[in-house]
Amino acid sequence: MTRVLYELAAADPDRRFSPFCWRIRLALEHKGLAFEGRPWRFTETEALAFSGSDKVPVLVEDGRAIAESSVIAARLEAAHPDRPSLFGGQAGAALTRFHVAWTDQVLHPALAPLLLLDIHRHLAEPDRAYFRQSREARFGKPLEAVCPDRAAQLATLRRTLSPVRAVLRQQSYLGGDGPLYADHAVMGAFLWARGVGVQDLLEPDDPIAAWCRRMVDGMGEGSRALTSG
Amino acid sequence: MTRVLYELAAADPDRRFSPFCWRIRLALEHKGLAFEGRPWRFTETEALAFSGSDKVPVLVEDGRAIAESSVIAARLEAAHPDRPSLFGGQAGAALTRFHVAWTDQVLHPALAPLLLLDIHRHLAEPDRAYFRQSREARFGKPLEAVCPDRAAQLATLRRTLSPVRAVLRQQSYLGGDGPLYADHAVMGAFLWARGVGVQDLLEPDDPIAAWCRRMVDGMGEGSRALTSG
Repeated sequence: MTRVLYELAAADPDRRFSPFCWRIRLALEHKGLAFEGRPWRFTETEALAFSGSDKVPVLVEDGRAIAESSVIAARLEAAHPDRPSLFGGQAGAALTRFHVAWTDQVLHPALAPLLLLDIHRHLAEPDRAYFRQSREARFGKPLEAVCPDRAAQLATLRRTLSPVRAVLRQQSYLGGDGPLYADHAVMGAFLWARGVGVQDLLEPDDPIAAWCRRMVDGMGEGSRALTSG
Repeated sequence: MTRVLYELAAADPDRRFSPFCWRIRLALEHKGLAFEGRPWRFTETEALAFSGSDKVPVLVEDGRAIAESSVIAARLEAAHPDRPSLFGGQAGAALTRFHVAWTDQVLHPALAPLLLLDIHRHLAEPDRAYFRQSREARFGKPLEAVCPDRAAQLATLRRTLSPVRAVLRQQSYLGGDGPLYADHAVMGAFLWARGVGVQDLLEPDDPIAAWCRRMVDGMGEGSRALTSG
């Protein structure tokens, strides 16, 4: 039975830009599990109705739909214990929650202002109104006013990344010698940016930039083709 | 042979306030290893000369001196593999580096401004000049000017703690069902504050406050006596 991952897409179906969907794509590749990545758009709620979720990622495996990236990752780990581990054991799974929470609550808010207009520009026409309305409500201002000073926001982002940078000065991946789900969670943020054509986030000599290259090099060909931005 | 941990102390030798020393005290207790905690003050460099380090923590075990908290923790894990693990395995050790880096680079800078004057007030007389001079150089202003708005700094600290809070809403400890070194690293920050009498950092219903109580309850009697602030 085909394994299907529903992924957020822009007007161009090859622009996959949800950081949460990217985590699961990377997790599926980590586990060596074949899947079809099916593009889905914000306003296509009907196409997801079967899953009980109104958001992606949704993974359909063995005829069962699972939503929410952390739930999907835990399920993949439990269902495929013979495949490479996403967490490196029970303690690793518990510890990874901090990387995920930090990515969601600290890294994403520092990055989002830099991406909003690019996301909006790349969306399919019917999604634009939804995106503008929901994000303007969230930020309390017009999309165009969220990031009045790009250079300052970029500096904030780079400063925000300091604990990731400190770890990557000590080891090749957040997971140690190889990537774990913690790496996938943080990498999702950079793939969010690439998905809408934003690639200038790091200084070239930043250890995080080298880690991003290693992460992209480790991706399957199909996924890599989706990151060319 | 006695195991000795050199710990930073205030004028009152029972005020142990270094967050890095606390990590190691908690790690030693985690491992169930008996030790003598020996108070040491900033200006007592001669008393540490034997170790090759000019800073605490320094642990002397089997006649060997080891400095730097992360090095000591790794050494304790390697030397006592039969005792409860500080990291929960190799992946856990790699993942814990992020908790430690975040604590050092994000949490401590958010907390320090709230503590500087209390630290200064509690120090032994010869340490005060050293402390004022070194910290004023680091912050680029008089100690009294580092935290002009305590309420705003407290709000910053509480916001900074959001990823810890998110994890502790999902599980009892950063390490899962029980504490790991990641917990000790973060708890060190709160024990730094308690060591100089600052206890009002969290809202009473903050999940982090409940975790702090669990962490203190789990401490040995001798250590708990050092936290009454």
